[in-house]
Amino acid sequence: MKFFNRFLLAPGPTPLPEEVRLEAVKDIYHHKHPKAKKVFQKVTEDLKWLIGTKHNVYQLASSGTGAMEAAMQNLVNPGDKVIVINAGNFGGRWSKLAKAFGANLVEIKKEWGDMASAEELEGVLKQNPDTVAVFCQLSETSTGTCCDAEGFAKVVSKTNAILVVDAVSGLGVVPLKMDEWGVDCVAAGSQKGLMLPPGLGLIAMNDKAWKLVEANKQNKFYFDLRLFQKKLEKWDTPWTPPIGIIMQADKAMELVKEEGLENLWARSTKLADGLRAAIKALGLELFSKYPGDAVTTVKVPEGFVTKQITGPFRDKYNITIAGGQGDYEEKMFRFGTMGCMDMYTELAGVAALEMVLKDLGWKFTPGAGVAAFMAEMMK
Amino acid sequence: MKFFNRFLLAPGPTPLPEEVRLEAVKDIYHHKHPKAKKVFQKVTEDLKWLIGTKHNVYQLASSGTGAMEAAMQNLVNPGDKVIVINAGNFGGRWSKLAKAFGANLVEIKKEWGDMASAEELEGVLKQNPDTVAVFCQLSETSTGTCCDAEGFAKVVSKTNAILVVDAVSGLGVVPLKMDEWGVDCVAAGSQKGLMLPPGLGLIAMNDKAWKLVEANKQNKFYFDLRLFQKKLEKWDTPWTPPIGIIMQADKAMELVKEEGLENLWARSTKLADGLRAAIKALGLELFSKYPGDAVTTVKVPEGFVTKQITGPFRDKYNITIAGGQGDYEEKMFRFGTMGCMDMYTELAGVAALEMVLKDLGWKFTPGAGVAAFMAEMMK
Repeated sequence: MKFFNRFLLAPGPTPLPEEVRLEAVKDIYHHKHPKAKKVFQKVTEDLKWLIGTKHNVYQLASSGTGAMEAAMQNLVNPGDKVIVINAGNFGGRWSKLAKAFGANLVEIKKEWGDMASAEELEGVLKQNPDTVAVFCQLSETSTGTCCDAEGFAKVVSKTNAILVVDAVSGLGVVPLKMDEWGVDCVAAGSQKGLMLPPGLGLIAMNDKAWKLVEANKQNKFYFDLRLFQKKLEKWDTPWTPPIGIIMQADKAMELVKEEGLENLWARSTKLADGLRAAIKALGLELFSKYPGDAVTTVKVPEGFVTKQITGPFRDKYNITIAGGQGDYEEKMFRFGTMGCMDMYTELAGVAALEMVLKDLGWKFTPGAGVAAFMAEMMK
Repeated sequence: MKFFNRFLLAPGPTPLPEEVRLEAVKDIYHHKHPKAKKVFQKVTEDLKWLIGTKHNVYQLASSGTGAMEAAMQNLVNPGDKVIVINAGNFGGRWSKLAKAFGANLVEIKKEWGDMASAEELEGVLKQNPDTVAVFCQLSETSTGTCCDAEGFAKVVSKTNAILVVDAVSGLGVVPLKMDEWGVDCVAAGSQKGLMLPPGLGLIAMNDKAWKLVEANKQNKFYFDLRLFQKKLEKWDTPWTPPIGIIMQADKAMELVKEEGLENLWARSTKLADGLRAAIKALGLELFSKYPGDAVTTVKVPEGFVTKQITGPFRDKYNITIAGGQGDYEEKMFRFGTMGCMDMYTELAGVAALEMVLKDLGWKFTPGAGVAAFMAEMMK
């Protein structure tokens, strides 16, 4: 049967709302045009609100990884001691960045699907009082586990170290309150909760972090945040910004403000609850020990590999979900509940999962997944 | 909870596929531009294939009703006897047109939800041997009932009369084989099975019908098909055609050809089967005695009125379905299974129906509708 709807249910890039797509069809503005500069200013203010900070947010022409690099490159000097909470692929990326920029790396390494606690971090910080920065993921996209960023911030703020949170797959999806929690630096990207195409990297810093930027000695140019700060004072950027995406961000932020952050976070929870109920009703198992509300990870049943699921999902049923990463590439699959994915998109994902499982000969009551999902929606 | 997907599940206008929407964003062509003329020719040929005729198809700048008027105005002289099979709002529209153009009207009037049989038509034709034309609906949009157009054609072709089929809500949804069945004239519009915006009217005629056109004495100008025929010989139209929609029609027809007519018809049946199963699982009743596969009509339960269902459907759950028409305005609601509505859109419709019914206090097992729909899909 032909499918006209092509849904994107991966944990990023995510689909774009109609209003955001329409913006991309308009003629592009030069980034120095007064209208473009006005939108740049408005989007900067909106992003500060979204991240929960009164400090500046810098907009980079980069992916989320570019924003992560900007954090590491601007905050950490060669030889500085850093703690990375590594509980998945993106924790691993912080470690790689730390090594690439010559840091003295202390890893809190956890099994994928597990997560370090604030107490554990506190212990490691006590053993390493010379730590300059702690790096973590708000939502570890590879496992679907959210960290206790608020608890981490409480612990780190008692030390001289700063807390850097990779919020790429969590910003605009699950709660993040940078200033209130005492997070010192947030790095994020456009292609997940922000409902935008990839290409806009974000980085926010408080004064404690900014002091490290000013004292930083790394060789750098493109991501030198001092240059961004100087230009931001005139609502400008040192290099060409991705102005098309920024114009779209203006529309996306209007939608976020209209919905309200509490409603938005509650939506992620509700949709993830629905997915989790459906997964269980179909006799499958969640991967994460502490399932977060941005990414739902599912174990591939014994005797199967991931691509037997994600392949027909995409090619036969027109829905893209994600497989596993690293050692779990063929052992799990992942659904996003972020951005403009709504009840209907997620329900379609459950429907496709039923059809794929049936094709594979998996035993379950037809309709059990969608029924469990809907029962959860109507609770 | 916020809905980003805004689905259109009414029995027309229907949603547009991505490829068709993108075409509308392109710069418009002048209709005499060689590329526009080439597309006009290609679309004409494609429509002939779709309708199942080797005869010409005329493209009008009109809605479906315009195409119906063109049929009546070009085929029927004042005083001519015509038989209208009137089993709903659009049967009623044929009757109104017949009266407006001074025809001698014989109605085969049926209760809404019922339909005349070929035998019944044969009897009326025998009583009225001077009948010039018979008018029917391939799919009566107001009740969801499909007629036996093939059987009607068999009966009418034995007489001097012609059979005119309003295929507005059936073309590209349920089987129609104009030449093979012996249908003499087909009138249709763009906004249903063709997956296009409203504004393109279609009319096809065989030689038996064309003889009536040539002998016709009605006053007319805009819909004078002799002018259209003359221009069509040079792949042109007498007045400005809706070239934007025609360029989109080229894309839509590519999708139809790619899917194949048999697959497309089977899809409508499958989706309508799913809807019917869901309706029953939720304890509701179908309206039509002979439910067709283009429109599924549901009785509003005792004690409720239609707008209590269609209102929240649209305003709370972001899906537009249709209410009833005429005397049944507040007694039924209607889902389309046409055009690019696919399994995911219809499933969303069932999900919204469950939520609306729950809000109204209707008793059912949460998830029963979506489960029944999915069980039908996986049969």
